[in-house]
Amino acid sequence: MKNTIPSRLPINDFVSEIAKGNTVILAQAITLAESKLDEDRELSEQLIERLLPTTGQSVRIGITGVPGVGKSTFIEAFGKHLTSLKKKIAILSIDPSSAKTKGSILGDKTRMEDLSRDPYAFIRPSPAGITLGGVADSTREAILLCEAAGYEIIIIETVGVGQSETTVRNMVDFFLLLMLPGAGDELQGIKKGIMEMADTVVITKADGENINLANQACADFRYALHLFSESESHWKPSVITSSALEKIGIKETWGLIQQYVEFTQNNLFFERQRERQNLIWFKENIQQLLIQQLSKSRTITSKIKILEKQVILKTVLPSRAAREIVSDFLSS
Amino acid sequence: MKNTIPSRLPINDFVSEIAKGNTVILAQAITLAESKLDEDRELSEQLIERLLPTTGQSVRIGITGVPGVGKSTFIEAFGKHLTSLKKKIAILSIDPSSAKTKGSILGDKTRMEDLSRDPYAFIRPSPAGITLGGVADSTREAILLCEAAGYEIIIIETVGVGQSETTVRNMVDFFLLLMLPGAGDELQGIKKGIMEMADTVVITKADGENINLANQACADFRYALHLFSESESHWKPSVITSSALEKIGIKETWGLIQQYVEFTQNNLFFERQRERQNLIWFKENIQQLLIQQLSKSRTITSKIKILEKQVILKTVLPSRAAREIVSDFLSS
Repeated sequence: MKNTIPSRLPINDFVSEIAKGNTVILAQAITLAESKLDEDRELSEQLIERLLPTTGQSVRIGITGVPGVGKSTFIEAFGKHLTSLKKKIAILSIDPSSAKTKGSILGDKTRMEDLSRDPYAFIRPSPAGITLGGVADSTREAILLCEAAGYEIIIIETVGVGQSETTVRNMVDFFLLLMLPGAGDELQGIKKGIMEMADTVVITKADGENINLANQACADFRYALHLFSESESHWKPSVITSSALEKIGIKETWGLIQQYVEFTQNNLFFERQRERQNLIWFKENIQQLLIQQLSKSRTITSKIKILEKQVILKTVLPSRAAREIVSDFLSS
Repeated sequence: MKNTIPSRLPINDFVSEIAKGNTVILAQAITLAESKLDEDRELSEQLIERLLPTTGQSVRIGITGVPGVGKSTFIEAFGKHLTSLKKKIAILSIDPSSAKTKGSILGDKTRMEDLSRDPYAFIRPSPAGITLGGVADSTREAILLCEAAGYEIIIIETVGVGQSETTVRNMVDFFLLLMLPGAGDELQGIKKGIMEMADTVVITKADGENINLANQACADFRYALHLFSESESHWKPSVITSSALEKIGIKETWGLIQQYVEFTQNNLFFERQRERQNLIWFKENIQQLLIQQLSKSRTITSKIKILEKQVILKTVLPSRAAREIVSDFLSS
């Protein structure tokens, strides 16, 4: 573990190199943020706090969709469009289960061949074997580090089948859902509740024989979204079709995102959402740390297991079991 | 506060009277479960643990809908149908905001005149001025107490505009969403995500001039629900129209619930969901108690406020702020 950071620069060098956009040092700083060693965390937090004043200037975009939806093809086409506009973009992935699902996500950079060679793009896969809470924290910190390094658009990629979407929703400005043509046949496997978080739905693979299907899906989703109540941002989610192969719907997606940013900056939702996200980060971390501390005690975790069995057997009341655990923990 | 419990019976008398279905003692036991006094909680938990083996035999139904949807009229008609079948029913409400919203919920029993005089029905309004976590706990305990008293169907009523729906979803077997005819015009104000939790949607007020509108809403919701992926129970949510005035859709609702119970008991989802709900109760309570303990310290709550401001001003990293709070708390 100690060797995951190739070299520990003095903090001032980290700060100045990241400010210059040095991607090697940026990558090291992200590795530092992912480290679980106390001394690394200490250094990482000091570093990010030094950089905080220069963060926040990017547009943070969450992109999700089930495996097979063509996520990396879409992101590659979308990313190339952005870099062709001379935008510096960073692509981060969040996928706590990537180890289990054999890395359906960015584990393999070569899936985005063009982008990974593009000097305007920075691609960073998710660290393997780490809990969702851990990924969430390190991704939030990676966003800040990329912003300090001058990236203007940050894309957070996630698989639309797990619990990570709510987490991602809580760290981005704009949430994009990719769907296959052929929606409505209940085969998409997108988790309930995710559609309602989307600021825009893009129907992928709208080319060749799929075109009719894609147009139908587009109409279906427009109709479905219309049934939902208005979101707090007052932004009305759009649904468009796209073909990464034929470069259709790519420019349009970026156009929609720009409209969204302008709209929510004008009605102040943009800034309010960011503030709230930071407060959620703070509060969630307090809860996580408390549970983490509690789980460190073997006596307590084994008592939890025993009580869980009793709860299932209905020999103990869940609320009393909880009180016992907390009082044991706080008196230890 | 001490006087909220008219008389504290010996626990054995509580147990035997509740087992006999004595509603006066049942009501006292629920008041005891709602009390915040340590000695009351102690007694209440002992009592409920004694009764636990005789709980769990009811069908627990959550019913939600925005104010104006005709919730109490529907529940009254639905409840009368059940009592006409000689079913003992209990109706509990969960509404942490009832004090603020001037009690749109069961605050006034007389809203269900017939039911409140029905010996087969037990109606219990939500305690006022108590947090969602507190309501959740006492409602869970009230469910168990009503079951021990022989109630076969427990209805948990909630207002479909707040955060309480997820809480209710986590304590019932079946979740029923009431919607007005005229859905699709985005005027329903139902919170995002709630529709996806529904096991059945009932379009209310399908009478008179509303009939066409109600049928249209019915088709709309069927279509929308069809876009969602299958739920874990494998139950496909139905959408029906109802008129409490003309007693339409009332029997059908109960029929659907019976089908659901049979279906999920056969595929074992019913029991699995209950086990999981009990484990969630246990875990959520641990978190709540920890945060409660933390909030008891004035030093810590005032430090949280200061750190929140710094988080918003971006002078401190949320994760570091959280670590400071937790370490202060655990060393105090």
